[in-house]
Amino acid sequence: MPRSLLVVSAHAGDFVWRAGGAIAAAANRGERAVVVCLSFGERGESASQWLQGRSLDEIKGIRRTEAEAAASALGAEIEFLDLGDYPLRESPQALAALVDVYRRVQPDVVLTHPLADPYNGDHPAAARMALEARVLAQAIGVANSDGTLPAKDEIIGAPPVFFFEPHQSEQSDFKPDVLLDITDAFPRKRAAMECLPAQKHMWSYYTDLAIRRGVQVKRNAGPNLGLAHETMGEAYVRYYPQVTDVLA
Amino acid sequence: MPRSLLVVSAHAGDFVWRAGGAIAAAANRGERAVVVCLSFGERGESASQWLQGRSLDEIKGIRRTEAEAAASALGAEIEFLDLGDYPLRESPQALAALVDVYRRVQPDVVLTHPLADPYNGDHPAAARMALEARVLAQAIGVANSDGTLPAKDEIIGAPPVFFFEPHQSEQSDFKPDVLLDITDAFPRKRAAMECLPAQKHMWSYYTDLAIRRGVQVKRNAGPNLGLAHETMGEAYVRYYPQVTDVLA
Amino acid sequence: MPRSLLVVSAHAGDFVWRAGGAIAAAANRGERAVVVCLSFGERGESASQWLQGRSLDEIKGIRRTEAEAAASALGAEIEFLDLGDYPLRESPQALAALVDVYRRVQPDVVLTHPLADPYNGDHPAAARMALEARVLAQAIGVANSDGTLPAKDEIIGAPPVFFFEPHQSEQSDFKPDVLLDITDAFPRKRAAMECLPAQKHMWSYYTDLAIRRGVQVKRNAGPNLGLAHETMGEAYVRYYPQVTDVLA
Amino acid sequence: MPRSLLVVSAHAGDFVWRAGGAIAAAANRGERAVVVCLSFGERGESASQWLQGRSLDEIKGIRRTEAEAAASALGAEIEFLDLGDYPLRESPQALAALVDVYRRVQPDVVLTHPLADPYNGDHPAAARMALEARVLAQAIGVANSDGTLPAKDEIIGAPPVFFFEPHQSEQSDFKPDVLLDITDAFPRKRAAMECLPAQKHMWSYYTDLAIRRGVQVKRNAGPNLGLAHETMGEAYVRYYPQVTDVLA
Amino acid sequence: MPRSLLVVSAHAGDFVWRAGGAIAAAANRGERAVVVCLSFGERGESASQWLQGRSLDEIKGIRRTEAEAAASALGAEIEFLDLGDYPLRESPQALAALVDVYRRVQPDVVLTHPLADPYNGDHPAAARMALEARVLAQAIGVANSDGTLPAKDEIIGAPPVFFFEPHQSEQSDFKPDVLLDITDAFPRKRAAMECLPAQKHMWSYYTDLAIRRGVQVKRNAGPNLGLAHETMGEAYVRYYPQVTDVLA
Amino acid sequence: MPRSLLVVSAHAGDFVWRAGGAIAAAANRGERAVVVCLSFGERGESASQWLQGRSLDEIKGIRRTEAEAAASALGAEIEFLDLGDYPLRESPQALAALVDVYRRVQPDVVLTHPLADPYNGDHPAAARMALEARVLAQAIGVANSDGTLPAKDEIIGAPPVFFFEPHQSEQSDFKPDVLLDITDAFPRKRAAMECLPAQKHMWSYYTDLAIRRGVQVKRNAGPNLGLAHETMGEAYVRYYPQVTDVLA
Repeated sequence: MPRSLLVVSAHAGDFVWRAGGAIAAAANRGERAVVVCLSFGERGESASQWLQGRSLDEIKGIRRTEAEAAASALGAEIEFLDLGDYPLRESPQALAALVDVYRRVQPDVVLTHPLADPYNGDHPAAARMALEARVLAQAIGVANSDGTLPAKDEIIGAPPVFFFEPHQSEQSDFKPDVLLDITDAFPRKRAAMECLPAQKHMWSYYTDLAIRRGVQVKRNAGPNLGLAHETMGEAYVRYYPQVTDVLA
Repeated sequence: MPRSLLVVSAHAGDFVWRAGGAIAAAANRGERAVVVCLSFGERGESASQWLQGRSLDEIKGIRRTEAEAAASALGAEIEFLDLGDYPLRESPQALAALVDVYRRVQPDVVLTHPLADPYNGDHPAAARMALEARVLAQAIGVANSDGTLPAKDEIIGAPPVFFFEPHQSEQSDFKPDVLLDITDAFPRKRAAMECLPAQKHMWSYYTDLAIRRGVQVKRNAGPNLGLAHETMGEAYVRYYPQVTDVLA
Repeated sequence: MPRSLLVVSAHAGDFVWRAGGAIAAAANRGERAVVVCLSFGERGESASQWLQGRSLDEIKGIRRTEAEAAASALGAEIEFLDLGDYPLRESPQALAALVDVYRRVQPDVVLTHPLADPYNGDHPAAARMALEARVLAQAIGVANSDGTLPAKDEIIGAPPVFFFEPHQSEQSDFKPDVLLDITDAFPRKRAAMECLPAQKHMWSYYTDLAIRRGVQVKRNAGPNLGLAHETMGEAYVRYYPQVTDVLA
Repeated sequence: MPRSLLVVSAHAGDFVWRAGGAIAAAANRGERAVVVCLSFGERGESASQWLQGRSLDEIKGIRRTEAEAAASALGAEIEFLDLGDYPLRESPQALAALVDVYRRVQPDVVLTHPLADPYNGDHPAAARMALEARVLAQAIGVANSDGTLPAKDEIIGAPPVFFFEPHQSEQSDFKPDVLLDITDAFPRKRAAMECLPAQKHMWSYYTDLAIRRGVQVKRNAGPNLGLAHETMGEAYVRYYPQVTDVLA
Repeated sequence: MPRSLLVVSAHAGDFVWRAGGAIAAAANRGERAVVVCLSFGERGESASQWLQGRSLDEIKGIRRTEAEAAASALGAEIEFLDLGDYPLRESPQALAALVDVYRRVQPDVVLTHPLADPYNGDHPAAARMALEARVLAQAIGVANSDGTLPAKDEIIGAPPVFFFEPHQSEQSDFKPDVLLDITDAFPRKRAAMECLPAQKHMWSYYTDLAIRRGVQVKRNAGPNLGLAHETMGEAYVRYYPQVTDVLA
Repeated sequence: MPRSLLVVSAHAGDFVWRAGGAIAAAANRGERAVVVCLSFGERGESASQWLQGRSLDEIKGIRRTEAEAAASALGAEIEFLDLGDYPLRESPQALAALVDVYRRVQPDVVLTHPLADPYNGDHPAAARMALEARVLAQAIGVANSDGTLPAKDEIIGAPPVFFFEPHQSEQSDFKPDVLLDITDAFPRKRAAMECLPAQKHMWSYYTDLAIRRGVQVKRNAGPNLGLAHETMGEAYVRYYPQVTDVLA
């Protein structure tokens, strides 16, 4: 069975800017990648559409379509929990739905937002839900959302969790401890960004960020990696300690 | 060329208790492992020998012999800079000697003490020297200790640095972010511990610690590792971000 | 249009002791100052009135009258959301009411409690609400409490937020990064304190604190400020970075 | 009136592993010790019973019986609030029930979980409830759960709060600032552990931990304590500053 | 043998303002109190005397006389190492002299400056020396300053270390975890302050601080302490965990 | 007398990349700006010149000439203390020379490196020296480097200190609390960058960084600043609290 990656995203666009490289790299390796968007970002991240006089349902529809296209460009599946944004609220129902996702996907790796973001409370809320659901999904005594108890092979293991990069890293106490080389995956990330036309000004912004993180990949790399010159990168923070049998 | 591991140890015994598993695992994989002891721990960690009325030189000799036996049991080379302990003092000469070691060993990985230890100032001093020498050894404009400039292939790359575990982890702000599975290497670590007869009471103490860290290896492991039941572990803290092309 | 200051206070008295100087200084400059009290402090900070056998409504009335007098002494408007205290609870309704306040006041500066206080959970709750409402009030897709969408000029900008001083600063991890000179405003602050007769013992306590913070104003001032000798001060912590075009 | 100790435990077993020594020591001194379990740990910490096909009520019953036996072995009273686990949810009703407990027990000392635990969200939830209820129970304006106001001697003072040790101390940012010598109390703690047969593998694990903390008791002790060789210990973190009239 | 207290003070006046209450309380209990001043504060804390045109030796003499009077008022012995200030420099000789002091005094408790102070680098330097000498004085292999090895009963145990309060507590990351009731000792502290006439303006400043810390003593005290109303306090931070056999 | 800005730079190029905007903005306002380079960066930051076989003196000369041109482009004076780099060593002589600079320049504002940088130990060393010299320069009892005592108007006040941005901000625990709008000054900063031809690849890197910080200037700005679209920025961290008489 191929490895699987689960990405828990507060709004419909976050996974592209912040984790598109990791997702595309997984897809390139033949792994399964599943994105779950807790909301569409319909109220807090769709200003231009509100200014055009669109209705709530129209805006949700537009965001959904764009996100599906971007996920497709990355090689990922996508689903939407439609929990509402600004604010995104934690609830028993939302948590149960997310537990079901974990048990269905059986992720080997989980990506989500970091736990602090002074500019957007939905991002930490998504992270708290992603973390809490991951723990609940491990417990055989915690029921599925339909009230049935999970079978022994339905509960999940202890997949590592990585926080992806917030918009203002230092203000969110985001100190990267993993620098991911996404050079080969970057063309797919760029293609996914271009599926989001309303945020065209961010295409170059996040391309520059990938270059910046790529410089750090090179500066921090060990001597034998032989990295090519035009390295592109993404930054992550581990939530749990790395388990390994070799220090490298 | 096989990978090489450099361990910078303040005193003659530290590398055994704190990093013996990592060292033996490297040796088991056919890698080169080099331990450099900055001092013998002759004043600060040899109380029983002083109480027996031995001289400074005798004590140094005993500690050297024991450390050589332990290194041998682990499969490592060992050398001694004899910089004196309690206190271990940083100096330009000591730093230059350590730069030479780095350039000679060309390490792929570096292990040393963490930067804080309220119980023993020599440990952070060793860490500061290990870190400073690593940066200097990278620079082509920094001379060797004999005054010659290094050739282009004598300078080192950017090997990752891992801090090994201090005696009282929490008091030293040691929050492990890497848990190393040393199950297969543990017999060699135990054998090395038994080369240090004056600290016999610590054999069981550090065996218990390996069990404790092993439990954490299991609790934090991803679902597909298939770890055996009797896992033994060591804990580490990375100083620089991990560079990788896959999140796991 | 004059600048405006919004102060979000958990209980009816907090704004006087902790931010009275900043409020009076703003009023002295001809700016608008608006205080919003989330509760009256009727359960948690009215022990003497409960001991006198007063009813809940009587206590609320007394606290309201005193707070109105204090606000008037400072030159500020005041309003009360009457959300209840001990505990002060965050709710969608409370948040919506606070969003309305932001959009109505259009503050240039926001003051509230810091995010930690081991002695009083209402204070951090007020801070969380003040911060969350500020972000929601910026979004054109977030409705007003009456369900209507805001017009383009009803949403707010990004006013800086300052946390005022808690009762036990160090225990609340309150490390001031702004020291405000309130020397000229202090007489109005003192007058406002004297509107709260039930806490007469705190008049001298907070006068002493103003002297203490004034000493720090002097110790940290640049050489050309020409501060008079009897400096009075208040301490604040910024939540967002300062934006400026001159370092000073 | 003898001193009294209140222990707020998320699940039915936590108090044994983490604070059994402190509880038994209090009982040995003739003090009153009361354990309140917020849940039975029926969903999150009873995997083996779910695998045996037991029902929810059966599992609760088993956990209750074991916890009562363990409390008895320690010399403590025990009660259960049955709030549900995985997740343990804070609610006004739960908080009011806990306020009643505080006012009934009038504790001189409070023990509970630390505020962070990345592996189990119920533990921090229990801590938040224990802390919030303690503050509410001090206020004469906060009603009892039956709606009556407390009499003057029903409210509580300001008992110190100690956090007991989580399973993975460093990952939970648990830096002990109190090391408790439990040598004399350890036999009762061991007896209490043995009342929990489903977790037999933890008996030796927590005995080893007591030895480890005992070594730290010795390393950190002042010169005149004359501690015997086989010291056993437990580690704690204070939440509020210690109040004393002698530095020692 | 009575208990003994060692106070390591960077300059000749620090011990009075910051730890006078603890010193006088120890003396009141019949304990030995020894103050060691590393410098006289002759360059950095004697501005008024320099402005009067006094010479370096005159200034040292004045500071010595005043400090001796203040120590006497507190009931303490005092000695001076005359290491120079602004900057106070750590050196092997200074450290050896301080090791001798430790071994001579055999302290049960040690007080010194905290490790951070952005306003005065001598204070952290004194703390580092006090801490390093304490560890060296424990080791039987570390010689006395005359080159002789210590006898078995000359080395010291592991006395707890408390940091006393810096001038700007929050800026120095000073978060008190011990609040000392100095009500009974305060008259001697005030008398000692009055031995320092050049800093007359600080008499009321530090009296106000004692009141402030006294309020916190009351706010944090357990219910059964029966503290009188006019409590005076001093604040401290422990460097090592407290060792105890009762939680209180 | 115009305001003056002092910039303490470890190597000959740092001030351009990291603080060129603040320097040029000061010059544009008619203020005096003085850069002091503690070393030329001759060993650690001149790899390409060593590879070309140049001598130490030649390299110093090249670096000096380039730095002078860059300072001139920014409108700043420049001087060199030639203390050596890799490692840059603190010494009494170096400190005394820097005290003289402070007293000569009488700065209203000081800029230097932050106190942590895991990639380059010279940067924190420069910061420590800049901070220590600033405190010594304030004391009338601290002599000038020629042994004379300073006159009353030769000592300095308490200028605020700002840390400029390190190469890898998060790894250096650099959390900006001041965002400086350098839009108008940026052309001079770019011109100064172009005076450093050996680091041509960094011209675009630091232009991108200015755009990135400019985006943050806009995101954090209050509503009335009316910032133009193409904002360029630099990030800073204050070391001492801001002193002000208006919150903004």
